[in-house]
Amino acid sequence: MVVSQSAVTRSESDVATPPAEVITRDAIFDAHRRGKLGVRLSVPLESQRDLSIAYTPGVAQVCTAISERPELRREYTWTDRLVAVVTDGSSVLGLGDIGAAASLPVMEGKAALFKQFADLDSIPIVLDTNDPDEIVETLVRMRHSFGAVNLEDIAAPRCFEVERKVKAALDCPVMHDDQHGTAIVALAALYGACAVQRRELAGLRVVISGAGAAGVAIANILLAGGVRDVVMLDSKGIVSRDRTDLTEMKRELAERTNPANRRGVVGDALDGADVFIGVSSGTVPDAAVAGMAPDAIVFAMSNPNPEIHPDLARKHAAIVATGRSDYPNQINNVLAFPGVFKGALDAGAREITEAMKLAAARAIADVVADELAVDRIVPSPLDPRVVPAVAAAVAAAAAR
Amino acid sequence: MVVSQSAVTRSESDVATPPAEVITRDAIFDAHRRGKLGVRLSVPLESQRDLSIAYTPGVAQVCTAISERPELRREYTWTDRLVAVVTDGSSVLGLGDIGAAASLPVMEGKAALFKQFADLDSIPIVLDTNDPDEIVETLVRMRHSFGAVNLEDIAAPRCFEVERKVKAALDCPVMHDDQHGTAIVALAALYGACAVQRRELAGLRVVISGAGAAGVAIANILLAGGVRDVVMLDSKGIVSRDRTDLTEMKRELAERTNPANRRGVVGDALDGADVFIGVSSGTVPDAAVAGMAPDAIVFAMSNPNPEIHPDLARKHAAIVATGRSDYPNQINNVLAFPGVFKGALDAGAREITEAMKLAAARAIADVVADELAVDRIVPSPLDPRVVPAVAAAVAAAAAR
Repeated sequence: MVVSQSAVTRSESDVATPPAEVITRDAIFDAHRRGKLGVRLSVPLESQRDLSIAYTPGVAQVCTAISERPELRREYTWTDRLVAVVTDGSSVLGLGDIGAAASLPVMEGKAALFKQFADLDSIPIVLDTNDPDEIVETLVRMRHSFGAVNLEDIAAPRCFEVERKVKAALDCPVMHDDQHGTAIVALAALYGACAVQRRELAGLRVVISGAGAAGVAIANILLAGGVRDVVMLDSKGIVSRDRTDLTEMKRELAERTNPANRRGVVGDALDGADVFIGVSSGTVPDAAVAGMAPDAIVFAMSNPNPEIHPDLARKHAAIVATGRSDYPNQINNVLAFPGVFKGALDAGAREITEAMKLAAARAIADVVADELAVDRIVPSPLDPRVVPAVAAAVAAAAAR
Repeated sequence: MVVSQSAVTRSESDVATPPAEVITRDAIFDAHRRGKLGVRLSVPLESQRDLSIAYTPGVAQVCTAISERPELRREYTWTDRLVAVVTDGSSVLGLGDIGAAASLPVMEGKAALFKQFADLDSIPIVLDTNDPDEIVETLVRMRHSFGAVNLEDIAAPRCFEVERKVKAALDCPVMHDDQHGTAIVALAALYGACAVQRRELAGLRVVISGAGAAGVAIANILLAGGVRDVVMLDSKGIVSRDRTDLTEMKRELAERTNPANRRGVVGDALDGADVFIGVSSGTVPDAAVAGMAPDAIVFAMSNPNPEIHPDLARKHAAIVATGRSDYPNQINNVLAFPGVFKGALDAGAREITEAMKLAAARAIADVVADELAVDRIVPSPLDPRVVPAVAAAVAAAAAR
């Protein structure tokens, strides 16, 4: 779920209230009692012989082998396919900076999704520090304990520095899912929408509301994927080269986006735009969406309250997607991260590259290539075809 | 397995060679392929409803609850009963300082034993630093990620500093197993041996060969358990107050041990002694053991090669124990650590106290109280009665 700066503010009426809640609070807390993860053994430990193989004295032979040939760690320990889900708890769901301890249920959920969807073992590592260098240092000290790092729910703009430094410091796949998982699925959805409308990405004028973790990553992957005209909005309005209040990251973005040097607020940005992508915690006025070009595409991804209610958006837009499971076209990270990490680990990749992310987006879109429709531009998060397809595409891209 | 300084040196003849190996190298490596651990889900993630409960949006309610009442982390995450098995790989089995990566098979084995014997989830955290302050700092940053810390295979004398600092810094059970697991089981075995011989601990003259992690902890627990005359041996001979080459730890030990101020080497120490406890990687001469008092008790715990072969020891001693599974009276840490951590976590204890360790030793001995014999002074490591008994005793001690 993405929450970041937005050009728009929450409306009082809150048209996007979820439908009648059928899941009780008790059901949720009961499911979380004692947590959602456990450890299992993959060897028997019932007999003296089992102990002699898995523990002493047998284990010493395996330790010696790894000590002589460090690369054997990958073959003879669980760490090669173990994803550490790492957070500092600074930007958890829509809840903000709730800290390491309170972030645990999300991180356990993430680890559970890795297991369920990609059969990857995964453990939550929640860090009681917000200092990027301390986060990096901690992971470097632990580096033999895991085979990949899924950074999660780290607040922007620190998340950019953390990801950059962790990637540089570790010789294994690293990805901040709030950035790239979201971006991959947004691009996949845009591939799908364009296929339905028989349009090319290169011809689209795209507006992204929210210049935080997700917004920046979406802008980058859209540009890498062939979109030429991307306009970003932050809490002050359109990100343009003549603004003097931009962070370094946004100043750099301003150089690569907004080719027409538009200025103003959300209504100015959306006037005649083809695509709106919302990754903010705000709302976008009905009138602004009404001002978009014909056949408009709206991805209102804020969760649980989309920037504009999908029923309203459909009045003005040809294709509408949200992050919600109770409306068509759910843009959900779970379409990306299990397969991306599985593919990277299958390939023995040492990093997750831009090419691997683009391949993942294409693979997600291709799963529903023969079923495309206005209300089916991406597969369901539960579609069993997705992870194998994404993993294969990512592994192939890694091999290239 | 314990390896430390010894007053004695390995003999060329190596009488303690293991018996014919029936477990092949292939069997060991096959069992270790891809590691010995995995993650399992304790909630279903099959349907959209499952996702809404275990992940978004449901999970947000649990995060909010923990954020408002941090103690709820214990109830609603897996971390409350999760043991981190933490090492720097500096003293692994008899292999020495093989480093973090090569230590992983032992740490996975340890985690697997926690699961198998005490149904505690456990994950290996191997740290690529030997600096005590960095180890402490790393665990402090990670502290919400686990509920207890089993320090493992950290070399002496650093292990004393690491354990002291980690215990002081963390508000959860912490124990260096190479010290206290070994010590608890050694005391349990001595309880058993004394019961067989109808002797009191207070009347024993005990010699400990090896003043490393295990030797120091055994000395401490024996003194706490009522033994009055403990003599330690290090690589230079008897640890006595008039030696000028002692580390701070040994100087402090010299104040509390060796009441008769004995000096000399292993033969001098064992002359007339009642108990020999070997936690070294060396051997002890036949003649030195022959010089012990009648009804001598010998625990030759070095693994896989005991300080004196049990068949030889039996010529001079009434009761002989080793660390090996192929001889009677196996003194194995697995009798202690699963129940100790289970009891501590069951009780919600914030530390593992001396009283809890003494209670664990007594509980181990009591399991075989009605079956005691010269070749049955401790239970088998696979005896299912041990962990529940130890956990209950430790929890009761924690509650006092």
